[in-house]
Amino acid sequence: MPLSEFELIRKYFQSPSGARPDVRCGIGDDAAIVAVPDGMDLALSMDTLVAGVHFHPDAAPADIGYKSLAVNLSDLAAMGAQPAWALLSLTLPEADETWLGQFMRGFNELAEKYAVALIGGDLSRGPLSVTLEVHGFVPAGSGLRRTGARADDLVYVSGTLGDAGLALKVLAGQAAVSAGDQSYLCGRLHRPSPRVALGLALHEVATSAIDLSDGLAADLGHVLEASGVGARLDPEKLPLSEALQRLDREAAWEIAATAGDDYELSFTVPPEKRSVFEEERALECPVTCIGRICAQPGLQWVRPNGVTWRPEGAGYRHF
Amino acid sequence: MPLSEFELIRKYFQSPSGARPDVRCGIGDDAAIVAVPDGMDLALSMDTLVAGVHFHPDAAPADIGYKSLAVNLSDLAAMGAQPAWALLSLTLPEADETWLGQFMRGFNELAEKYAVALIGGDLSRGPLSVTLEVHGFVPAGSGLRRTGARADDLVYVSGTLGDAGLALKVLAGQAAVSAGDQSYLCGRLHRPSPRVALGLALHEVATSAIDLSDGLAADLGHVLEASGVGARLDPEKLPLSEALQRLDREAAWEIAATAGDDYELSFTVPPEKRSVFEEERALECPVTCIGRICAQPGLQWVRPNGVTWRPEGAGYRHF
Repeated sequence: MPLSEFELIRKYFQSPSGARPDVRCGIGDDAAIVAVPDGMDLALSMDTLVAGVHFHPDAAPADIGYKSLAVNLSDLAAMGAQPAWALLSLTLPEADETWLGQFMRGFNELAEKYAVALIGGDLSRGPLSVTLEVHGFVPAGSGLRRTGARADDLVYVSGTLGDAGLALKVLAGQAAVSAGDQSYLCGRLHRPSPRVALGLALHEVATSAIDLSDGLAADLGHVLEASGVGARLDPEKLPLSEALQRLDREAAWEIAATAGDDYELSFTVPPEKRSVFEEERALECPVTCIGRICAQPGLQWVRPNGVTWRPEGAGYRHF
Repeated sequence: MPLSEFELIRKYFQSPSGARPDVRCGIGDDAAIVAVPDGMDLALSMDTLVAGVHFHPDAAPADIGYKSLAVNLSDLAAMGAQPAWALLSLTLPEADETWLGQFMRGFNELAEKYAVALIGGDLSRGPLSVTLEVHGFVPAGSGLRRTGARADDLVYVSGTLGDAGLALKVLAGQAAVSAGDQSYLCGRLHRPSPRVALGLALHEVATSAIDLSDGLAADLGHVLEASGVGARLDPEKLPLSEALQRLDREAAWEIAATAGDDYELSFTVPPEKRSVFEEERALECPVTCIGRICAQPGLQWVRPNGVTWRPEGAGYRHF
């Protein structure tokens, strides 16, 4: 007889990070109970990954486990929050213990890095999908919002852009790259790095932040709309990995500006804080200034020679 | 062009209860930010309802919305927690605005009753399913657990048992009841009442509590196992609605003891607190003492005449 839901949860969901002192009651009761530290607010984010939509049904289970946590931690990073706890709801066509074990191995790899305790969740039968909710702390009254960008603020992005987008094109047979580049790009697609340390360092410095899940143009567009401003960016400044640099230049810009799934941060910094910020930035990843916020609404791309450029795509649409 | 994910979220997820003063940042940023009151711990529960597994794909969307919140609030009730916030992840085959509007109408009906603010979530394309996470408060260091039942404690259940189970049999054509009974039973199945006020009243009184989602025998079994005790129950004490009372007696016991989806509470009370508790119990629903905890492990059913009884089923198995 296969293991029951309860036995499966006991066997696979007891994460090695389950022993945080702020967890008063973890997996195994009707609800988890946790203590939020004094002086801290709670940041919460929930994301669902559906097989066939957000990942290939045959993707490596360990990668799905890793990525499901990474994309949620990326949302916390964009608020400048310190990760703490996660709840996981897995829907599986059948109780495949090999799949579950590998999924949790990938999940735990990242959970241990950030001391995230898995404190609860649900296991259901149905079409494969993963829903995760993560919780983190921000100093009370704080938190990096989308609403604070002001004219003249500098626009930064972390890491390099477009790697996940190019990986998807390669996997779809729409682009060809070397085996080495393919391996690098697929690593970026399947195991994105949530910019948690960068997010924490942005408190007191950044006026706004967002994570790039749907592509720079779409996601920065949310910040511009929420802040009631516009931006003028230089496509030549877009930070590109070597794999992207080997493409035709405008094709690389197109991917870097519009493709989703990179999970880098885009944030704005007032010019007078630039030096403070650039001293601190030997953090975890490079950051690049790609332009400026302006009062006039809308997103414009202007090259240093004054020629405007315009990406063709508009970012990922979920419906 | 249909509305985008962001437009749909803006249009349908802005709940009327969104204005709790403890919500610092609700829907529309990378993560929500909330403030937990001083002296309170946070209780968290997450449940997924999958079409074709937990509800019929053609079920009324308003009922699915109502029930998805009800089953999660029931978990909070079983911890004695005061509900506060919810995050919702909806996976839909297509962006059906009629469906979404009706779903949220059912959801909001119950959310308003308990002042639950919808503060975030996700909308994805894929096979229909609903994942909800709810958050509530318990006094720090408190919370009703499954581990505290002790020998001689009295075993109580709220409301009546087996109504949802009989409704499922009727809908499957395995039982026939009057039109009036069918309407009552389906109401219990589709719109269960989370016993939030009862859970709050059980602090300081109950030694353990659990909500009955998988059936009394299975769920009380979890409490007995977690507490290292057994129980001796009287099937004649099982509280039955009029619809169940019209069945053959042992058939009614079978359903009341083993069928899931009732979302009543089962809890244990030390004998010396019985009077305190029974004075307070003019709460929201009747409660019935159905037996006692005993030191010897296992669940026994013994009628007042000393004859033992044994249900045939074993509760709902998710896999």
